[in-house]
Amino acid sequence: MASGAERKALRKLQPGLPAAWYRDPAHHDRELEAFWYSGWIAAIREEEIAAAGDWRVVRVGTQSIVLARGEDGALRAFHNTCRHRGSILCTKESGRFERNRIVCPYHSWTYDLEGTLIATPRRMETPDFDKADFPLHTVAVDSWGGFVFVRLEGKRKLELGGMPDRFRNHRFHNLRIGKRIVADVKANWKLLAENFSECFHCPPVHPELCRVVTAYREAGAWGLRGAETIPEYKAGARTLTPDGSARIPPFKGLGAKDRETLYVPWMLPPNLFLNVQPDYVNSHMMFPTGPESVRIVYDWLFEPAHMPRGKDLNHYTALWERTNAQDARNCEWQQQGLQSRAFLHGVYVPQEFDCHRFARWIRKGLRRAPAD
Amino acid sequence: MASGAERKALRKLQPGLPAAWYRDPAHHDRELEAFWYSGWIAAIREEEIAAAGDWRVVRVGTQSIVLARGEDGALRAFHNTCRHRGSILCTKESGRFERNRIVCPYHSWTYDLEGTLIATPRRMETPDFDKADFPLHTVAVDSWGGFVFVRLEGKRKLELGGMPDRFRNHRFHNLRIGKRIVADVKANWKLLAENFSECFHCPPVHPELCRVVTAYREAGAWGLRGAETIPEYKAGARTLTPDGSARIPPFKGLGAKDRETLYVPWMLPPNLFLNVQPDYVNSHMMFPTGPESVRIVYDWLFEPAHMPRGKDLNHYTALWERTNAQDARNCEWQQQGLQSRAFLHGVYVPQEFDCHRFARWIRKGLRRAPAD
Amino acid sequence: MASGAERKALRKLQPGLPAAWYRDPAHHDRELEAFWYSGWIAAIREEEIAAAGDWRVVRVGTQSIVLARGEDGALRAFHNTCRHRGSILCTKESGRFERNRIVCPYHSWTYDLEGTLIATPRRMETPDFDKADFPLHTVAVDSWGGFVFVRLEGKRKLELGGMPDRFRNHRFHNLRIGKRIVADVKANWKLLAENFSECFHCPPVHPELCRVVTAYREAGAWGLRGAETIPEYKAGARTLTPDGSARIPPFKGLGAKDRETLYVPWMLPPNLFLNVQPDYVNSHMMFPTGPESVRIVYDWLFEPAHMPRGKDLNHYTALWERTNAQDARNCEWQQQGLQSRAFLHGVYVPQEFDCHRFARWIRKGLRRAPAD
Repeated sequence: MASGAERKALRKLQPGLPAAWYRDPAHHDRELEAFWYSGWIAAIREEEIAAAGDWRVVRVGTQSIVLARGEDGALRAFHNTCRHRGSILCTKESGRFERNRIVCPYHSWTYDLEGTLIATPRRMETPDFDKADFPLHTVAVDSWGGFVFVRLEGKRKLELGGMPDRFRNHRFHNLRIGKRIVADVKANWKLLAENFSECFHCPPVHPELCRVVTAYREAGAWGLRGAETIPEYKAGARTLTPDGSARIPPFKGLGAKDRETLYVPWMLPPNLFLNVQPDYVNSHMMFPTGPESVRIVYDWLFEPAHMPRGKDLNHYTALWERTNAQDARNCEWQQQGLQSRAFLHGVYVPQEFDCHRFARWIRKGLRRAPAD
Repeated sequence: MASGAERKALRKLQPGLPAAWYRDPAHHDRELEAFWYSGWIAAIREEEIAAAGDWRVVRVGTQSIVLARGEDGALRAFHNTCRHRGSILCTKESGRFERNRIVCPYHSWTYDLEGTLIATPRRMETPDFDKADFPLHTVAVDSWGGFVFVRLEGKRKLELGGMPDRFRNHRFHNLRIGKRIVADVKANWKLLAENFSECFHCPPVHPELCRVVTAYREAGAWGLRGAETIPEYKAGARTLTPDGSARIPPFKGLGAKDRETLYVPWMLPPNLFLNVQPDYVNSHMMFPTGPESVRIVYDWLFEPAHMPRGKDLNHYTALWERTNAQDARNCEWQQQGLQSRAFLHGVYVPQEFDCHRFARWIRKGLRRAPAD
Repeated sequence: MASGAERKALRKLQPGLPAAWYRDPAHHDRELEAFWYSGWIAAIREEEIAAAGDWRVVRVGTQSIVLARGEDGALRAFHNTCRHRGSILCTKESGRFERNRIVCPYHSWTYDLEGTLIATPRRMETPDFDKADFPLHTVAVDSWGGFVFVRLEGKRKLELGGMPDRFRNHRFHNLRIGKRIVADVKANWKLLAENFSECFHCPPVHPELCRVVTAYREAGAWGLRGAETIPEYKAGARTLTPDGSARIPPFKGLGAKDRETLYVPWMLPPNLFLNVQPDYVNSHMMFPTGPESVRIVYDWLFEPAHMPRGKDLNHYTALWERTNAQDARNCEWQQQGLQSRAFLHGVYVPQEFDCHRFARWIRKGLRRAPAD
């Protein structure tokens, strides 16, 4: 993932972000503005709201967003807040709107699936009342590869960098959730992103992963050389499972090289991380719940025709379930250590070039954001 | 409850209070000063401290107040704080002072029921010590209708608006508690007050209530017309119970019109709400516990001669118990929805004239209060 | 403990510290700086890290400190934070470093017991990387009497006031822990210190203690006269146990006067309190966990040759266990009472001369500290 220029930069040690940025509540508010309310956030999988009227609620920072499928099949997203006096509209995590109407549970103000106010329980006895003045506050929504993204502020054109090109053949939009785990982790969101950005920690932290991705046995081997270009795996391995064995075929449409590349990590900041194998994907959608905590939704995605069940499913989820839990635990330990008054910032070593790239993205995003 | 002038005002939609006022801790502190520490607060029922030496502790905002009955039968109230080094004096919720002495549990400084320091465990070996310099910090206290009110700052003359006149015949002071429920609700106190101020939400939220108070079946019917003046109830109903049936006689002293008015709501801001029926009262005393939370003490009050027991008591408490829980739940949903960045304030429709009146009372009270 | 001059001062009542200082988070931060990060803090007993490579973690305010025994037998202390990217190094409360190496659990940066970085998992491919630039951040450490003290900032010379002289014959360094209790108390740390500084509260709060130390039966007797100089105990008492009986001999090396002085309290601010008996010591090490909370480590220390077991141990721990719990409860009540808006500060009476001395120490320490 590193360009030549970036590798060059990392011939020098690079200072990490200020330790206070990982814990200070006021700084966290700035980051919510700069990255979470002004950027595209992966929210759900399309299949979660498959039919017209289906809805699902996600929380981005302090904001509760309703995602819904319209009668026209289109995705829409709204603030989960009635225009009348501010009640939430959806009081559970997911469901289907009856008769395709969004009805506030407080005074029954009623909206259609486009967010237009279409009925109040009784005519407003004021000449100045116009329902057109009270549509739901909308949120930009778009999808790619089956991932639904929302954006609270800013341009409505989805930006995904090089991801669609890289995974054109994988047809992520065809995949379906085989297993989901939701975890609350006591660490600042940036630590999870940095953790995902380097495998320098793999030998001490992830012995099981290193058993399959043998290139990781040597700390720092990966990264500078790139896991993608020189795949080095356990002899005979066909995918990332505890023993490297596969029980389902590779994704239809993959070429030989993609089938042999057993693992591609991909991060779309701030909150979508992908572990891509030839026959399944483990995705992470991360949501900050405070300066020192995140909720992470881990999904295992498969082709429906080859969806593994029972022990086969466990075979496919075991490695990343273990590895993700190790990462979460280590990020919590890092969060604790960052409290030290003596520790002003860390340092990125050459193998952590992608952390450095992430840190530069953070600094740039904060410069762009108004300082209140 | 709305005068002609107020109804006129509500021929226009009115903006609600700023959403931030329902969640910001600094604003909450301002409201504690303006309304909770400078106004009369309903605290307990007189019967809770019936005999000389009886005491009870209530919390108003961050303040712990001891209410006690003196040897002369008079009510008194003090900060629950010893003048010596600040320990609380009463370490439980209620009790009776032994030998009518208030003894601090730390160093045994001892006060009489008027708050005068009358003994320290040993003579102070300083010439400058004068017990008269260390009376308990007093809190203004008064009562009406069996409700005991306290006021931490300001004039000591109890102000109750039109309540005593309206309920002269009900003789609230004769009533006794048949049931008490204490509930912690995760909503700003003003949401509870606004919720009590309108029945525009009754059809969707309170189907059981609407079955008895049929006037409420039509959203917005009430309010503009007034529940009191045009009582419309379930055929044959005699009070507010699930089926409208009564099992005890109306309050002694009620005239025909009061006996036929099955329901009168009354709010004495900031914290006393009354649901008045001809044969019982359901009272709410509300205490903020934070910017986004309140504790509510719900009482069901009856004439002692007709105090219902067992199933009869359940018959009398069931409707408001259900209705109050519905209101609490809806206020919690509203609190959640008010977090939206897009929602700056709500809007009051004509039926919500009393919310508008409450909002004006809030704005006026804050203008009067010093801004720190 | 009071000098003549101090007694003189207390012929007048003295105002206590501002009530806000016991609860305000910003003030608490100032006190962390002034007393907890710039002073010597009792952390552990030497025996807890008896052998080379043994380590133990303590928290001082928000800071996590690792105390370790070096290969040379010397005590050392470090911030529990890796210099690389800030992970904690020790993820449990105590243990022994394998092969005398401190290995970060994240990327295996490896330090020796002196805190020197001696290995990273792979050569850093940058010419500017010098391991000497990344030693662990050290914390000053020293010990006396078996107590290990740490200091995060300032001079490295341990200052213990008159304690070593007073307890020269007790040979605290010989003692070992017979029982430990760890308690979380919801009170500001200064309340615990003031509580320890006076026995004016003993008659109402500690009936069991007063049964043995009969001098305390009269409130205020102690302090002005001094428990040490006029020992007045239960007839036949030989130590502080519920009935005054001893089951082990006095400390070797005590003279007749020390053997007859059944109780000497000693406070080394901010956090070490000692209850010294002729045959055992009950020590308190206090650690603030917030503006309104502390964690207290209570130890009972004995000569190893006479370490009591089973019922004998209970006999020796029962009195202070009860008394310490009473003190903790009363400090929590005081913390609650200090919330009163009407209570600006308490007052120290003559018997509380040592509270006054403590308060002057606090005021002086804060004056010295920069105001941010």
